[in-house]
Amino acid sequence: MLKPGVLDVQGKAIEGALHGLGFDAVSEVRVGRIIELELAAADRAAAEAEVKAMCERLLANTVIESWRAELG
Amino acid sequence: MLKPGVLDVQGKAIEGALHGLGFDAVSEVRVGRIIELELAAADRAAAEAEVKAMCERLLANTVIESWRAELG
Repeated sequence: MLKPGVLDVQGKAIEGALHGLGFDAVSEVRVGRIIELELAAADRAAAEAEVKAMCERLLANTVIESWRAELG
Repeated sequence: MLKPGVLDVQGKAIEGALHGLGFDAVSEVRVGRIIELELAAADRAAAEAEVKAMCERLLANTVIESWRAELG
């Protein structure tokens, strides 16, 4: 997700479209991405470290985006 | 998320980029969207019905995308 305070233009556009369809009770729409993947790792700790590295090096723009990971 | 069987070109691109960075243990990358919003509703059942209507009418392309909702 975009960090709080970063303008989410996509969220604003969706909110406007929802209002246009009559869904007036909606507010504070924010859009993010979810990335699911399979990862071969020795153990849970190794998997967590690998995911952290992937997020920080490629998957997230940490200047404006926050990220969190869930291991299945 | 895109339904199983629908080619996820964005996921494939991310998977290729991760491999290029040396994250070789990654596979089956798939990308979806997450939409967070505030909703004023009379009760939980009304909120669920409203979210279902929003997903089916605007938020999801149900031909190729699956969706699920979580109420906070």
